[in-house]
Amino acid sequence: MTETVSIREVGLRDGLQLVETYLPTETKLSWCKEEAAAGFTEIEVTSFVPPSILPQFADAAVVLGGAQEIGGLLPSVLVPNLKGAIRALDAGAKKISFVLSASEAHNQSNVRCSTDASLTMFRELLEERKARELQDTVQIAGAIATSFGCSIQGHVPETRIIEIAAAMASAGADEVNLADTVGYANPRQVSRIFEQADTVVGPVPLAAHFHDTRGMGLANVVAAYDTGVRRFDASLGGLGGCPFAPGASGNIATEDCVYLLENLGVNTGIDLSALLRLRAKLTDWLSGEEMSGKLLLAGPAKTFAPNCPVVMTGTHT
Amino acid sequence: MTETVSIREVGLRDGLQLVETYLPTETKLSWCKEEAAAGFTEIEVTSFVPPSILPQFADAAVVLGGAQEIGGLLPSVLVPNLKGAIRALDAGAKKISFVLSASEAHNQSNVRCSTDASLTMFRELLEERKARELQDTVQIAGAIATSFGCSIQGHVPETRIIEIAAAMASAGADEVNLADTVGYANPRQVSRIFEQADTVVGPVPLAAHFHDTRGMGLANVVAAYDTGVRRFDASLGGLGGCPFAPGASGNIATEDCVYLLENLGVNTGIDLSALLRLRAKLTDWLSGEEMSGKLLLAGPAKTFAPNCPVVMTGTHT
Repeated sequence: MTETVSIREVGLRDGLQLVETYLPTETKLSWCKEEAAAGFTEIEVTSFVPPSILPQFADAAVVLGGAQEIGGLLPSVLVPNLKGAIRALDAGAKKISFVLSASEAHNQSNVRCSTDASLTMFRELLEERKARELQDTVQIAGAIATSFGCSIQGHVPETRIIEIAAAMASAGADEVNLADTVGYANPRQVSRIFEQADTVVGPVPLAAHFHDTRGMGLANVVAAYDTGVRRFDASLGGLGGCPFAPGASGNIATEDCVYLLENLGVNTGIDLSALLRLRAKLTDWLSGEEMSGKLLLAGPAKTFAPNCPVVMTGTHT
Repeated sequence: MTETVSIREVGLRDGLQLVETYLPTETKLSWCKEEAAAGFTEIEVTSFVPPSILPQFADAAVVLGGAQEIGGLLPSVLVPNLKGAIRALDAGAKKISFVLSASEAHNQSNVRCSTDASLTMFRELLEERKARELQDTVQIAGAIATSFGCSIQGHVPETRIIEIAAAMASAGADEVNLADTVGYANPRQVSRIFEQADTVVGPVPLAAHFHDTRGMGLANVVAAYDTGVRRFDASLGGLGGCPFAPGASGNIATEDCVYLLENLGVNTGIDLSALLRLRAKLTDWLSGEEMSGKLLLAGPAKTFAPNCPVVMTGTHT
């Protein structure tokens, strides 16, 4: 039987937070609609952060509302703290990714508190969900940034990642996402950390979020897949860059990730042709912004045979 | 004990054959000297092809001669047929890579004969080496282009690759190189084919030559390494592009490949800082040419610790 994976588009959040162009709300929703039509079942559509910090997400509630009307799609949103999480709950979010950083230095820099304080907020969010009786309708994922190293403090102890993953799972997380925020991960480290994490999260699914800053992003996908990970984040056109290295690339490109996994014999459920048509549009939408990803220029190999049933496009548009 | 690998630079051959700039002979030799000083022990310095076809290699004999004066360096040369091989032997080459294509369509297109006819030439070259009593001083490698698929004919049967690898080994090849000429390979296919090849070549070492045309180049390096391959080709700056997809990238970038393998805990013997300084010079030498590779822009991770003893630079310059 063909294995299946779920690829979550994060370009609308992780990508757009680092580009200069402000994409209009309608264009963001077109992006979601076209990806849903191409077979995506989850898209991280926005971030509930203060608009004074990231004004490109001032339309968070509107984007979320619009995305929730798209059939077959679960729009998820990122929150960096409890306040953002409450806003997301109030806006009716059905999946919330609460991110904290395993690196103390990075967490202090991002949200001005210790990692343990963020972890306490994560537990409070789960209590809040319970208080609102939303356990059956709202998923809450824990995302651990800098799981593979930090550009501020350098090494992050692997034991710390495992400890946080275990704490998130036992607190009631519906998913634990290990993120290589700054592109430091290598395939051996990925195997090691995901294998260990798998032993502490029980039945809670693990997800992987890789950047391709130093070229190892897709090799890391293979390593994580081989440890049993079946949920991957990726950003269309590798959109996002790296705030610490101008011109350097950021997230792994969604189209390259789909292509890789299909080549491994895995069913992504995604219509690659439809995705590449959208990718070409993205170049127009974000004219002048740096993108990466190899597949748009090279095209699929003549020998390429997708494992996924081709999705009927146009269903959601 | 730390595993070691040998990374062969092929940018001077596979890279330069596809760029528009003609690099002066002296610059080619500066490139070789700086890489030898950075720890490279083998560089494919040129191609013995008719200058009417690839005029950028009209200086083949001069480049080879100059490179052979660099201490600690084995310069290898590529030849596509017996005539080129004889020229290389006459020029005093100490390592010759004879390339044929496993794809009949590709071999016909490249050298206007069948793959079997090329294989016969390969055997004749080994006879010629014997006749000249050069078995102890000249290495002859067999390189199998389109080992993972062909952009002209599509699929190339895996059994055919194994058959050719076995034939080359039993004819007396000193190395068998499986090349993903058009960037079709994926990690599963790489594992499968190298594992099979390993069973038929006896003690003859296998080498891997990957392109990153569709983003899977470094993932393929990991897959090949895990089957036991310890010899890899790479091109500085990913130089070379893809003749079939303008703007698309070609060979895996040497600097990214070194960085990956060192991150896996493998000793490449290469001084990455010296290599990145040369990489920056290459941008000047080939101003306006498309390059790829992520590491130059992003820089090594703060946590990066090379496995190799740092080579004293300046030895050869």
